[in-house]
Amino acid sequence: MHAIDIILKKRGGGELTLEEIRFLVAGAADQSIPPEQLSAWLMAAFLRGLTLDEVTGLTTAMRYSGEVFDHTGLGRTTVDKHSTGGVGDSTSFLVAPIAAAAGLAVPMISGRALGHTGGTLDKLETIPGYRTQLSLTEARRVLVLCGATMIGQTKDLVPADRVLYDLRDRTGSVESPFLICPSIMSKKLAEGLHGLVLDAKTGSGAFLKDPAAVRFLAALMVDIGERSGTRTAALLTSMDQPLGRFAGNWLEIWEAVDLLSNRWHPMYEDIREISLILAGWMIYLGGKAGAPVEGRDLAETLLIDGKALDIFLRMVEAQGGDTSAFDDPGSFHQPKFRREFCASRSGYLAYMDCAKIGWAVQRLGAGRERAGETVNAHAGLEMRAKLGTRVRAGQPLFTLFADDEALFDEPERLLAEAVVIADQPAPVPPLIAQIITAENKNQFLELPPRP
Amino acid sequence: MHAIDIILKKRGGGELTLEEIRFLVAGAADQSIPPEQLSAWLMAAFLRGLTLDEVTGLTTAMRYSGEVFDHTGLGRTTVDKHSTGGVGDSTSFLVAPIAAAAGLAVPMISGRALGHTGGTLDKLETIPGYRTQLSLTEARRVLVLCGATMIGQTKDLVPADRVLYDLRDRTGSVESPFLICPSIMSKKLAEGLHGLVLDAKTGSGAFLKDPAAVRFLAALMVDIGERSGTRTAALLTSMDQPLGRFAGNWLEIWEAVDLLSNRWHPMYEDIREISLILAGWMIYLGGKAGAPVEGRDLAETLLIDGKALDIFLRMVEAQGGDTSAFDDPGSFHQPKFRREFCASRSGYLAYMDCAKIGWAVQRLGAGRERAGETVNAHAGLEMRAKLGTRVRAGQPLFTLFADDEALFDEPERLLAEAVVIADQPAPVPPLIAQIITAENKNQFLELPPRP
Repeated sequence: MHAIDIILKKRGGGELTLEEIRFLVAGAADQSIPPEQLSAWLMAAFLRGLTLDEVTGLTTAMRYSGEVFDHTGLGRTTVDKHSTGGVGDSTSFLVAPIAAAAGLAVPMISGRALGHTGGTLDKLETIPGYRTQLSLTEARRVLVLCGATMIGQTKDLVPADRVLYDLRDRTGSVESPFLICPSIMSKKLAEGLHGLVLDAKTGSGAFLKDPAAVRFLAALMVDIGERSGTRTAALLTSMDQPLGRFAGNWLEIWEAVDLLSNRWHPMYEDIREISLILAGWMIYLGGKAGAPVEGRDLAETLLIDGKALDIFLRMVEAQGGDTSAFDDPGSFHQPKFRREFCASRSGYLAYMDCAKIGWAVQRLGAGRERAGETVNAHAGLEMRAKLGTRVRAGQPLFTLFADDEALFDEPERLLAEAVVIADQPAPVPPLIAQIITAENKNQFLELPPRP
Repeated sequence: MHAIDIILKKRGGGELTLEEIRFLVAGAADQSIPPEQLSAWLMAAFLRGLTLDEVTGLTTAMRYSGEVFDHTGLGRTTVDKHSTGGVGDSTSFLVAPIAAAAGLAVPMISGRALGHTGGTLDKLETIPGYRTQLSLTEARRVLVLCGATMIGQTKDLVPADRVLYDLRDRTGSVESPFLICPSIMSKKLAEGLHGLVLDAKTGSGAFLKDPAAVRFLAALMVDIGERSGTRTAALLTSMDQPLGRFAGNWLEIWEAVDLLSNRWHPMYEDIREISLILAGWMIYLGGKAGAPVEGRDLAETLLIDGKALDIFLRMVEAQGGDTSAFDDPGSFHQPKFRREFCASRSGYLAYMDCAKIGWAVQRLGAGRERAGETVNAHAGLEMRAKLGTRVRAGQPLFTLFADDEALFDEPERLLAEAVVIADQPAPVPPLIAQIITAENKNQFLELPPRP
C-alpha cells in the first residue's frame, strides 16, 4: 500500500477502505509517512469531506494508535465530559467530582489553552504541586482512590492525533468536522468510556460560528461515540459571554472551589446551572439516574452536601496538589495590577463578541503566544455584568488583572470592540440551545455544503 | 506574511495577490517554507484551481527564482520547442539544428524519461562523451558557436520548480493544468525566448487523456507565454502510436542521424513531417519566415542540403560527444537480445494504447524504476507497422530489444493488451489536430470543470 495512492483516491473524492485508513494512521503514528504526504491528504480530506464510515474508521484507528485506558476490575462505570472550548468555563472542576460522588469513575484527559479558549491543564497547574502529567498507571491509582482523575494527554495515548493535529494546525486543515471529530473522539474513546457528554459550544465564543456546523459536528460525534459502544449525548450550550464570574487560570480554580464549597456570588448562576445539567447527563448516561433531569437533581444534592468537594480535595491531594489555599482562594489571587473596564454609555448589555473577550483574557497573560511558554496564574478578568442587564455609563463591566500594565492596552481595545450596549434589551440566548442524542442525531447528519 | 494564511486563502477558493505568490515561491526556492505547508497549498490549488492572473504570477515568480539565460549581445533571435512528453519522439534532435540553420538560436533545456515517455537527456547521453550537465556559461558558448545547445536543467535554474515538482510527484498534485503550466513555462521562459512552440500531445500516449484538458493546458501556456512577451504557439499533435521507426535511447539518436543525413525508411514518414512542421513554426515565430508553411519549406531545404546535420554534429562535438558513430549508427545498436512481437490475427491495425507501448519501452530497460538509475542505451523497440495498415496473422508488428531475456515478459504482455486488430480499417488520427495561437487561444480558456 502506498500513501500516494490514498492521497489520489481522496483527492478524487473516493471513499477509503478501512485498510487504507489504518495504513495512513499507522504511518502518522510511527512517522513512516512523511509530513508532506500527510498534510496533502489532510487538505484533500478537508476539501472533499469524509463519509461516516471513514470518520468512524479514522477515529477507531487513531484511538488504538497507542496505549489506551484499561478499566478491567475497576468495578465502576466510566464517564466523561468534553467541551469544544470555552471562555471562563470551569465546569470540568465541578462535573468530574460530582459524577464521581454519584459512584461513577471519571478518567478526564484535558488540554491546554488554545486560541481564545482556556485550558483545563493550565488552570489545574496553578494549584501548588498539582501534577497533570501522570502515567496511565498513576492515573488509574488516583481513579481507584478518588473516583476521578484530571490529567494531560500522555506521550503514548493516541500518538497519531499528536502528529496529525500539529500538522493540521500548521497546514490549514483544522476547522473540518470530519477531522475535528476523530481528533476529539479518538482521545475520549481511548479513555474507555461507558458514557460521554459533549459540551458543544455555540455563539460568539465558539470555534465554529455557524450553528448548523456545530449541530453537524455534535451529531457526528454522537454517531461515532454510539457506533463505538459509548453512550454519547451532545449539549449545544451558549458561549455568547464568559461563563461564571472569572476567566483566567487560578481565577477559575477559585470559582470552582467557591461553587464546590457552596459559596455564592451573583455571577455564579450560569456556571452552576450548566455544570449541574452536564453532570446530570453524565450521571444519566452512567446509569445512576433514570433521566437527565433526575441526574441534575442528584448532582445538586451531591454538590450541596459537600461530597463533590470532598472528592475534588482528595483528587488534588492524590495528584500532589496543596489544598490549603482552598479555604480562602480569593486571598491567593495576587495580580500586580488591576483595572476596571467601564461602560461607555448607558443602556442594555446587548451583545458580546465572546471570542474577542477570550483573546483579551489570553493576552492579559492567561494564554501563551508560543507553545511551551508558561501562563500567568493571576491574569484574567472578572465579569461585573451579564448580557441582558441594564448598565449605566461608567459602570464597571469587567475587572482586568495582569502582572504588567503594558498588557492592558490590547485587551482594553479588544473589549471595547467586543461589547455592544443598546437602547433596547436584546434576547439573551438560552444556556442550552439543543440536545443531540442517539435518538435524534440522524436529523442533523445531513452532510454540510462543501466548503 | 505567513504561509498558513496563504494556504487558508486558497483553501477557501480566494485569489492570491502577487506578493503572496512571490512569498510562496521564494519560500519554496530557499526552503524557508516547510514541505508540509507547500504540499497542503499545492493540494488546495489542485482542488480549487487558480485564476489566469495567479498562473501568470506563479510562472513569473518561478521563472525568476534562480538564474536565467542571458542573451545580451547574442545577436540572434532565440526560439525553442517543448513537448508534453511522447513515445519514440526524436523531433528535438531535428528541430533544434534546423532552426539554428535558419539563423536562430536554440537554448534547449530538456528532461529525463518520465512515466511512459522518453527523455531527451537520456537519449543524448548514449552518444559517447556527450555532456548534458553544462553551466549556463558553457551552454552559452556552445550556443554562440553552433546556434543550438541541448542541455539538462542546471541546479540554479528555476530552483522553485525542482522543490515543487518533487513535492507534487510525491503528494498527489501533478495533473493540474494550473500547476503543469507554471512548471513548464517557468523553465522555458527562463531560457529567455523570443518564440516558443509547444508540442501538446493528444491521444492514447498523452499524459492528459481528455482532449479538452489538453486544449485548455495548451491555451493556458500560450496565454502565459504571450503575456510574458514570448511569441507562443501550441500544436496539438497525435500521440496515438510511437513516432517514427524507433522508441528507445540510442535507437532514437540513430533515427535522428538517419533523418538529418537524409537516409530514408518507410517508418520515418510521420516523424520527418511533424519535425518539419514544428521547425517551421519555430522559424516563423523567430521571424525567419512570413508564415508557418513557409517555415516548413525552409526547414525542409535546410534538412536536405545538410546544414542541419552540420550544426547537429558541431553541437555534439562542442558538448564533448564523439560523432564517429554517426556514419553508420545502426552498427552501434548492439542489444544482447531481440524478439519479434507478431500480429495475433489478420486485419487492420486499428488502435494502439500508446501509453502501454511507452511503458513496454521503459520496462525493456530504456527507462528507470527509481530516480538516479542508469538507462539502457540499446533497449527499446522498432515499429514494423503503423496504424491503419493491413496486417497478416504472424506478421511482425514490433521488434523488441533488451539486454536480458527476462525483461521481455512484461513488455510482451503490455503490447498484447495495447494493440487492437479489427476487421475494418479505423480512421487514423491526423498528425496535427489543432493549432492554438495568440489569435484563437481565448476560445479554449474556459475554465475546466472542477476536478
